[in-house]
Amino acid sequence: MRAFLVVGSQAATAPFNLNGLTNAGRMDIICRCIAQSLFVSHGVRDDTDIYLLLLGPPDPPKAVHISGSTVRYMGPDERNIGGIIRKALDVDAGEPWRGSTPGVSVARRDLSGLLDELSYEVVFLHEDGDDIRAVDGLKDCLFVLGDHGGLPPSIRIVLEGQADHDVTVSPLSLQADQCITLVHNELDRRHAGEV
Amino acid sequence: MRAFLVVGSQAATAPFNLNGLTNAGRMDIICRCIAQSLFVSHGVRDDTDIYLLLLGPPDPPKAVHISGSTVRYMGPDERNIGGIIRKALDVDAGEPWRGSTPGVSVARRDLSGLLDELSYEVVFLHEDGDDIRAVDGLKDCLFVLGDHGGLPPSIRIVLEGQADHDVTVSPLSLQADQCITLVHNELDRRHAGEV
Repeated sequence: MRAFLVVGSQAATAPFNLNGLTNAGRMDIICRCIAQSLFVSHGVRDDTDIYLLLLGPPDPPKAVHISGSTVRYMGPDERNIGGIIRKALDVDAGEPWRGSTPGVSVARRDLSGLLDELSYEVVFLHEDGDDIRAVDGLKDCLFVLGDHGGLPPSIRIVLEGQADHDVTVSPLSLQADQCITLVHNELDRRHAGEV
Repeated sequence: MRAFLVVGSQAATAPFNLNGLTNAGRMDIICRCIAQSLFVSHGVRDDTDIYLLLLGPPDPPKAVHISGSTVRYMGPDERNIGGIIRKALDVDAGEPWRGSTPGVSVARRDLSGLLDELSYEVVFLHEDGDDIRAVDGLKDCLFVLGDHGGLPPSIRIVLEGQADHDVTVSPLSLQADQCITLVHNELDRRHAGEV
């Protein structure tokens, strides 16, 4: 299994206008991260999960989980994915995970609660990490990254305490969704070399 | 300079509804390809151009050129980029390139005409090519790829005749925009290793 956790530092925590994704705390970035986590050509990666930690107004924090193995009716375009997230944010978020559309569920979680619950090795993706091509392993990991605003200091402190690896994917500073594509590619290449 | 040419085999050639990018011959894919060609975190790649060859109804073929060094007012979200392409498709397309919004121009071109006009080495990106990590050079190249529908046979024949390199980026079949991200990353790494 592979998993990604995207921290949306200002991302909306209530239903938003699909014609204004950029104004919903940059929900467009979150949608692109979901697309890059889950889609290949003409299909969905059924070995991949993505978690969102949404920290923007009006009702933070909320976590959303999308399972590549069970998600349905999702296309890779921002508007389609935005519609699915909007429905998830209309569900009353509490301690138990509650289902929204197929493969999508929502809960009230902060970062510590989410990391405690998930049993992955944690890989913190940031510009000062080690080059992913030189880091062995990385199977069955949760790759954690921020959106355009970077990570709030309180989040960064938790991550620095919990991360098993610090990894970077590029000599340049890239957008979050691009980093996800590059992680997948490195792991796809390793997997193909093993079989 | 780096350049990409994305062939939209069914992509709209007249203004379209921004709320229905997927119904405009998968203009959503074209928009994502533009975003991945031009954007890094908090900026635009001023060393990169992207060309679109749009072959869908009602008025094919049309070519659109977006210059990373001169484009303005573009965000990385599909809706914003779709709006810029929609404006370009409202310009009367003829033999000379005609400007639309800053950095964006449009002309009547087929693939042969476009390749003849551009002075790049041509790299054909497809699944049966050589692994990009094993192909030296690739500086100052035009990377050509299709959208979700693959390339029409007539286009593929022209490309096979003109391509200087056949390259693949992944052991999996990926979406076009993902391939662009992976090309950039390989070239970014080479450039960083040189300086």
